[in-house]
Amino acid sequence: MSQQRIKHMVIFNLKHDSGSPEAAQFLADGRSILSSIPTVENFEAFHQVSGKNDYDYGFSMDFVDQAAYSFYNEHPKHVDFVENRWVKEVSRFLEIDFKTVI
Amino acid sequence: MSQQRIKHMVIFNLKHDSGSPEAAQFLADGRSILSSIPTVENFEAFHQVSGKNDYDYGFSMDFVDQAAYSFYNEHPKHVDFVENRWVKEVSRFLEIDFKTVI
Repeated sequence: MSQQRIKHMVIFNLKHDSGSPEAAQFLADGRSILSSIPTVENFEAFHQVSGKNDYDYGFSMDFVDQAAYSFYNEHPKHVDFVENRWVKEVSRFLEIDFKTVI
Repeated sequence: MSQQRIKHMVIFNLKHDSGSPEAAQFLADGRSILSSIPTVENFEAFHQVSGKNDYDYGFSMDFVDQAAYSFYNEHPKHVDFVENRWVKEVSRFLEIDFKTVI
């Protein structure tokens, strides 16, 4: 039963053009909606700028433990964001979860 | 000319077996060697635990700007680590660079 912190990230591409108002709105809404879920810590929205992969954006957040992560995954705000925004506006993505090496 | 901070990450797999002394040594040496380069901030070594991708490990570090990142890339300790450890012990990897959305 791990109580270890988890850093959850997703790197992704949008169907919207780079630099478009729609892209900016997606990032702003993602930050606003997801960071309001109580167990989400240190939410950040990023531009992915390495030319060594094909992703354009990233979200990052920390959870104190797996229970906090599950609370987020199952939270109505997250479920609604995935169903009504993510699946409609994101073209591809990769999820990454980090636990610090002790 | 961006002075914006950059979060540099790499997710990777090792040729060594998971849980082996050689894998632990690689993570420990990576942390020790790379975090000693003067412009590297907040170095962390991670286990990648999401089942939604095939990578096992991650390194993360922050740079105050592109010049600090370039200093790291060109530093003899980094060059030596890449040539003598990374290319020999890492089987696949993906680099990710994040700049915070303002």
